[in-house]
Amino acid sequence: MALKSKDLLGLKDLTAEEIHYILNTAKTMKVILLSKNKKTPHLQGKSIITLFYENSTRTRLSFELASKYMSASAANISVASSSVAKGETLIDTGKTIDMMGADVIILRHSMSGAPHLLARNVNASVINAGDGMNEHPTQALLDMFTIIEKKGSLEGLKVAIIGDIYHSRVARSNIWGMTKLGAEVSVAGPSTLIPPELERTGVKVFNTVQEALIDADVVMGLRIQLERQKKGLFPSIREYSRFFGLDEKRLKLAKEDALILHPGPVNRGVELPSSVVDSDKSLINEQVTNGVAVRMALLYLLTRRDSDESIN
Amino acid sequence: MALKSKDLLGLKDLTAEEIHYILNTAKTMKVILLSKNKKTPHLQGKSIITLFYENSTRTRLSFELASKYMSASAANISVASSSVAKGETLIDTGKTIDMMGADVIILRHSMSGAPHLLARNVNASVINAGDGMNEHPTQALLDMFTIIEKKGSLEGLKVAIIGDIYHSRVARSNIWGMTKLGAEVSVAGPSTLIPPELERTGVKVFNTVQEALIDADVVMGLRIQLERQKKGLFPSIREYSRFFGLDEKRLKLAKEDALILHPGPVNRGVELPSSVVDSDKSLINEQVTNGVAVRMALLYLLTRRDSDESIN
Amino acid sequence: MALKSKDLLGLKDLTAEEIHYILNTAKTMKVILLSKNKKTPHLQGKSIITLFYENSTRTRLSFELASKYMSASAANISVASSSVAKGETLIDTGKTIDMMGADVIILRHSMSGAPHLLARNVNASVINAGDGMNEHPTQALLDMFTIIEKKGSLEGLKVAIIGDIYHSRVARSNIWGMTKLGAEVSVAGPSTLIPPELERTGVKVFNTVQEALIDADVVMGLRIQLERQKKGLFPSIREYSRFFGLDEKRLKLAKEDALILHPGPVNRGVELPSSVVDSDKSLINEQVTNGVAVRMALLYLLTRRDSDESIN
Repeated sequence: MALKSKDLLGLKDLTAEEIHYILNTAKTMKVILLSKNKKTPHLQGKSIITLFYENSTRTRLSFELASKYMSASAANISVASSSVAKGETLIDTGKTIDMMGADVIILRHSMSGAPHLLARNVNASVINAGDGMNEHPTQALLDMFTIIEKKGSLEGLKVAIIGDIYHSRVARSNIWGMTKLGAEVSVAGPSTLIPPELERTGVKVFNTVQEALIDADVVMGLRIQLERQKKGLFPSIREYSRFFGLDEKRLKLAKEDALILHPGPVNRGVELPSSVVDSDKSLINEQVTNGVAVRMALLYLLTRRDSDESIN
Repeated sequence: MALKSKDLLGLKDLTAEEIHYILNTAKTMKVILLSKNKKTPHLQGKSIITLFYENSTRTRLSFELASKYMSASAANISVASSSVAKGETLIDTGKTIDMMGADVIILRHSMSGAPHLLARNVNASVINAGDGMNEHPTQALLDMFTIIEKKGSLEGLKVAIIGDIYHSRVARSNIWGMTKLGAEVSVAGPSTLIPPELERTGVKVFNTVQEALIDADVVMGLRIQLERQKKGLFPSIREYSRFFGLDEKRLKLAKEDALILHPGPVNRGVELPSSVVDSDKSLINEQVTNGVAVRMALLYLLTRRDSDESIN
Repeated sequence: MALKSKDLLGLKDLTAEEIHYILNTAKTMKVILLSKNKKTPHLQGKSIITLFYENSTRTRLSFELASKYMSASAANISVASSSVAKGETLIDTGKTIDMMGADVIILRHSMSGAPHLLARNVNASVINAGDGMNEHPTQALLDMFTIIEKKGSLEGLKVAIIGDIYHSRVARSNIWGMTKLGAEVSVAGPSTLIPPELERTGVKVFNTVQEALIDADVVMGLRIQLERQKKGLFPSIREYSRFFGLDEKRLKLAKEDALILHPGPVNRGVELPSSVVDSDKSLINEQVTNGVAVRMALLYLLTRRDSDESIN
C-alpha cells in the first residue's frame, strides 16, 4: 500500500489503515535506529528542509537526525532568527525552498492550517510539525507507537489525557488518532482549558483528574505552557499541580500496569513529580527514541510514494 | 579549460569565455538537480563553509544545498548570531576556517571588497555571496543562465533593470556580466538611486521606467530595501510603486515575449503586482532552481581546478 | 589499547599513556585532514551532537567539521538561541539527545563539572568542550600535539603560560596534561588572576612575565576576556599589554627556537603584537588544524571503544 496524500497534515485525514502502515514501518526503523550503525541509504538523493516559525529544539532535532540517519541532504531554517522574518509570505518562502529541490518541507507554525496552505502551493511533501492549536501528528504517532509497542494494540484501551487540552495540538492529534485505532479517550483539566465542543467527538470530559484516571491503561500528561498562566488562563502553578498534578497517589486510580506518557519537556513538579517522571512506568525517554523512528518511517513513506520499493 | 582564479569575486574579473564555461557546467548540474536522486559525489571529501556577516536565508540555503547535493562536508557560520562578532578580524576568522580544512569559503559581507581581502589571505577558494554595494556574482550568473535557457543567448538582447540601482550589487554584477555577453542594458529608477558614473559604462540611463521598458527582451525588477526608505533615500512605498512598479500596463511596452526576473523575495505590490509575479512570463521561481545549479557548477569548477576531470 | 572511560571530561583523569594514545591517533587523522579527499568512513552510522550553553563558533565548528569529515550524522544545539533555555534541566536535555541515538554529546557549559554530571546520566560518550573555569581538554590536547610535533616530546621542556590563569580552563587543562607528559610549567599574570593554590601543584608562579619567560621552550599566551576587565579584575587593556604583552623584546628571554602558542582568537596588540602573531615562531594557525585532527582522533577512539578495529 501507499499513503494517499503527498503530505502529512494531521491525523484527522488519515485512515486507521494508513496509521497502522506508518507505525509498522516505524518498527523497522527503530531496529535500524538502535543498531550499531544507524546509517541507511533510504533518503539518499532526497532533500529535507525544516522550516520552523516557532522555536522547538526537540522536534526539529528529531526530524534533522531522522533525515541524516537516512542519508538525506538536510537543512534547517529557523524563521525567528532569520531574514525570512522580513515580511515574506509563507507561500513565497515555501515556494523558494520547493524550487531549490526540497522533497519534504517540515513546517512548524503558530497559525492553525498553515501546513495545509503550504501543501497546496508546493510540489514537496509537507509534514506538519505542529500548527497553532490544531494538530501535531508526528507527536501523536509516536505516542501511539509507544503504547502499541507495550500493549500490543490501542483497541479497547482507556487513555486519560490530563492538562491544558484547549491549547494542545498534541491532545487534538492523539484524540483523532487513538479513537480511529479503537481507544476510549478521557480528558480532564482546568475547566477554562477544556474546549466546549469536545464531548460531541465521543471523548469523555471529566471535571476532576481522579475521575478521568479510574482504570486508565494509559495516562498522558500535557506540558503546561508557563507563559499562558501569566495571561490568567489557568490558576497558579502551585494550584495546577495541586489539582491536576499526576502524583503517585492519584495514579493508583489507574490500572496497576498503566503507562505514563508526556510529550516533554516535563515541568518537573508541575504536571508530574520527579518520582513519577523517573519511575519504571514512565515511557517519557522511550517516547523520544520512538519519535525518531516514526519520523524516519514518515520521511521514507512520503519520499517513496511514486516508487515500488517497500522496506517491510 | 579551467577558471583562471582560485576565487569567484565578481563578474568584473571574468572573461566572457569563463562565464560561458560556468553556465554550460550549470546546465549539467540542473539535470542532476531535477532528477529523482540529487546526490552526486563531485564534492566528496571537500569542505564548504558559508561565512555570512549579513543575514540571508535564501542565498545561504542555496549554497548549503548545492554543497550537500554534491556530498561536501558543509557548515554555516552566521556572524550576526555568533561569537565571531566579538571584534575578531575578518582575516583572522577566515584564516581559522581555512586552517580547519575549508576548500571553499562563501562570504557575504556588508563591506565592498571584503571577499577580495579574504581571498588574498587564505588558501581556500573564496566565493563572493554579496559584498556591500559592489557585486553579487552568483545572482547575476543565475540571472544570465535563466535568460540564456529561454532565449538561447544574451547577444543583442535588450535588458531593462528597474529600481534602486545605486545600492544594488545584483544590478552591478548583471551589468558587468550581461554586457560581456553582448546584451544592451538599460536602467531606470528614482534619480537619487542611480549612480552618476553609470552612463560612462555604456549602460543607458532613463528617467522614467516607460522609456527603459520599450522593446525590452528582459525586464528585471530589483528588490527595494524597505529600511532605506526610512532614511529618506527614496519616496514612500506607494510613490515608488506608482512611478516604478512593473505593472501589466507598463510591461506592454516591452516585447510581447519579454521575460520578467526578480532576485526575490519580491515585495508584492511594490516592485511588481502579484498578477505579474505569478504570471507565465515571470521566471522568479525558475531563477531559484537555476541558482542552485549555478552554485553547484561553481563549487565543482573551483574545487577541481587542479584536477583533469571534466563533467562535460 | 583503549581509553578507559566512555567520556573525555578532563586531562586530570587521563594517564600519560592515554594522552599519548590520543595524540598518536591524531597524527594519522592529520594526514587524512591534509589530504585531497578529507572524507573517511570512520564515524559512518554514528551520531555526534554539539550542545553549547556558551557561544563558541571556533570550537563548535572544529568539532562539527571533525564529525563531518568522518561521515558522522552531526547536529548542533546552541542553547543561547534555542528553546532549551526555557528552564529544562541539563540532564533532561541531555537525556533527550541521548534517546535520539547520540553516540557522542559534546558539551560546553559555564558551570564547572557540568560534563561530569551529564556523563553519569547518559549512555552517549560526553566530551567536555569547556566547563566554567575547570577544563578544556581538547584545547590542551591540541596544544600538546602541536608542541610534540615540533619538539618531539614534552619531556623536560620548559613551558611558560602567560595571562589570566585564574579564569582559564585552557591553562588548567594544559597544566594537568603537560606535567603528566614531563614538562615543567611556569605561569605569570596579573596577581589578581593567579589562583593561590597553584604552587602546590608543582607549577612555578612568577610575578613578572620576564621571569617566567627565561629559557622557555614554549610560550603560551592566553586570551584576555575583555568583559572581565570591566569588572575590575585586571587593569586596563593598555596596562595589561604593557606588563604582560608578549612582545619581541620580552620573547628574546625565551630560547631562540621557542614556540609561540595562543588558543585564539588573539586580541592583536593586547596579548601579542601582530608582529609576533604573524611571525614564523607562532604556531597559532597550525594549532587550528591540529585541533580538528585531535578531535577526529577522540571521536574515533570514543566511538570504537567496544570494537577491535584500530586505525594505527
